[in-house]
Amino acid sequence: VTRFEPNLRIPGPTALPPSVREAGGRQMVNHRGEEFKALLQRVSEGMKPYFGTQHDVIMLTCAGTGGLEAAIVNTLSPGDRVLAVTMGSFGDRFAKIAEVYGASVSRLEVEWGMAPSPAAVRAAAAETPDLKAVLLTHNETSTGVTSDIAALAAAVREAAPNALILVDAISALGAVPFAMDEWGLDLVVTGSQKAWMAAPGMAMAAVGPRAWAAAETATMPRFYLDLSRHRETAPAGETPWTPAVAVMYQVDEGLRLMQAEGEGVYRRHEVAQAMTRAGLRALGFELLAEDAVASKTVTAAWIPETLDWKSFNGALKRNGLVLAGGQGKLKGRIFRLGHLGSVTTDDILAAIGVLEQAAIEHGLDVRPGAAVAAAQQALVEARVRVAVTA
Amino acid sequence: VTRFEPNLRIPGPTALPPSVREAGGRQMVNHRGEEFKALLQRVSEGMKPYFGTQHDVIMLTCAGTGGLEAAIVNTLSPGDRVLAVTMGSFGDRFAKIAEVYGASVSRLEVEWGMAPSPAAVRAAAAETPDLKAVLLTHNETSTGVTSDIAALAAAVREAAPNALILVDAISALGAVPFAMDEWGLDLVVTGSQKAWMAAPGMAMAAVGPRAWAAAETATMPRFYLDLSRHRETAPAGETPWTPAVAVMYQVDEGLRLMQAEGEGVYRRHEVAQAMTRAGLRALGFELLAEDAVASKTVTAAWIPETLDWKSFNGALKRNGLVLAGGQGKLKGRIFRLGHLGSVTTDDILAAIGVLEQAAIEHGLDVRPGAAVAAAQQALVEARVRVAVTA
Repeated sequence: VTRFEPNLRIPGPTALPPSVREAGGRQMVNHRGEEFKALLQRVSEGMKPYFGTQHDVIMLTCAGTGGLEAAIVNTLSPGDRVLAVTMGSFGDRFAKIAEVYGASVSRLEVEWGMAPSPAAVRAAAAETPDLKAVLLTHNETSTGVTSDIAALAAAVREAAPNALILVDAISALGAVPFAMDEWGLDLVVTGSQKAWMAAPGMAMAAVGPRAWAAAETATMPRFYLDLSRHRETAPAGETPWTPAVAVMYQVDEGLRLMQAEGEGVYRRHEVAQAMTRAGLRALGFELLAEDAVASKTVTAAWIPETLDWKSFNGALKRNGLVLAGGQGKLKGRIFRLGHLGSVTTDDILAAIGVLEQAAIEHGLDVRPGAAVAAAQQALVEARVRVAVTA
Repeated sequence: VTRFEPNLRIPGPTALPPSVREAGGRQMVNHRGEEFKALLQRVSEGMKPYFGTQHDVIMLTCAGTGGLEAAIVNTLSPGDRVLAVTMGSFGDRFAKIAEVYGASVSRLEVEWGMAPSPAAVRAAAAETPDLKAVLLTHNETSTGVTSDIAALAAAVREAAPNALILVDAISALGAVPFAMDEWGLDLVVTGSQKAWMAAPGMAMAAVGPRAWAAAETATMPRFYLDLSRHRETAPAGETPWTPAVAVMYQVDEGLRLMQAEGEGVYRRHEVAQAMTRAGLRALGFELLAEDAVASKTVTAAWIPETLDWKSFNGALKRNGLVLAGGQGKLKGRIFRLGHLGSVTTDDILAAIGVLEQAAIEHGLDVRPGAAVAAAQQALVEARVRVAVTA
């Protein structure tokens, strides 16, 4: 079966809407000129409501991992005590970066598929003398779990009022409500290829006043990822190094689409999540995360031991459905379905439909149409729920 | 005057050819899948002849400056003795990065507009005990000077056979012949938005065996820019962090165009340089670099003290011509005209024509048509020269 454009259901890069694709094909401009100045300022300002911040949003040319490194090296010094709250591959990566640059990192590790509890975070923060920073993951892409950042940040503040709170919000910011300033977060990072519906190549970091103050004394070495240099050049509408102009065109267009959709963006992700979970469960897959902590942007499911995943995934791919595998210790044990950015309800119906067909062909106990029906039912229920709460 | 697409004559980002623009607007793929694997391997291999290397070419998601940082932090340790040969802003930046990460840097500073002599480099290298690395700039974008890397590298090898040679080749590689392996260079960096005719967002680093060996003991901290991680994931056709997929589509297409043009790419840059220099001289502008060291990709000219640059540049912009200003200590004193990447002879004729018109309007002593005629004459002569030498 030839499909002209796959149903790209990985948790980023996300499929680009037509107008975002068009933006990616625009001609270059002088990155030291008026057009770029307007673009940079429009994107920086446009991001702020999604971060829930009044503070600076810095545009970096790098992957999300580079944004996490920027969070570390701009605020910390070698030897600083850091508490890393980890619940998967990306939390581990954040902790590892701090270690590589010489921080003294203690870990609060939560079982993969679970979310950290505020009480555990409070206790761990209280136990760490001279705690300089806490690393939190908002949405753990490797497990499909979203933590309650508001509650975790409050717990940190109770135990360690002066600790910086640095947050990896790469894979859900923009798709769910977020309130950096209200929650007292100091530095929050996201990436262009996630909810923003743009190609990869940019990380965006919102930097609060406590993080800027920390940057003044932080001695970890930095140059390319030095946020202060961006702050210095921002008033002139420039970045210190040549920016990823075409990616920024796309982020700008993605933001325009999001602004036009308003609160609908959040509702769309809620509905897509509900449909995905209902559909996968109807197919007999056990989900990694419980509903209470389930991510709105990515869902992970266990691969049954009886299923030949290679053959099954081959069938999905031949029918246009592209999923992601597991990472780290879950490699080969789970699959992940991304439902973020440009995702629509028909994308999910198509995905469940293809999964259902492959499941039947591979001998899973599924009645034709049942999983799609479950997803449709979830769509109806989610719409009712959204209408009631709105 | 409305012009639908400016004549973007800055030394990068360079104007994108139509098919490169189209590539930038393509849909995303799974960056852990077969299509991306083929793309990464095709681009990495396709780059090698332009570097003149058989060794690894690593694709980084960052600006050229990030590539320079990668060159430093992957091969050096704090305290290492480094000789930085600088002839402008970008050479200074390369040296600064090494200092920020704790290297002990001595500088051989060449007057801006001049190129370093092999004898001076040999002497400076000989004077530096335990010299670990020499930083060279191939093409100094801030002054329009190209150094003789072959001769400089030979001078380094004579004085300090074990020193690493790290080269910033960002703004001319691909536009002029280059022979990393033959010249004995250890690490060479370029950027997507220069000769490669793609949008900014990627730096490419060719890494030789001595640089890889140095990486094993280098202790400068690194994570996002760790080249070894790229080397580990390359056989699987992956990058360690999410790559700038759309920029890589464009680099792939730019390479395809360059491969189709063959040696003509180098000739086109020679002709564009000759036309630019002849045209600017006929307008009465004094050029910063002498012919012998003049860059094939960017030409810098002094702004006459009698010329109101703001008004003059405004006239250029209204007529579609976008130039770059000076950097660092040359800010406000020079302008720069880029002739790299997709540049064609008619782009230069248009630029000289617009400059000529503005010059006449601003009271410079120019006979209408004279500068364009000089550029045309240079075009004829350069074609004859190219034909004779070819």
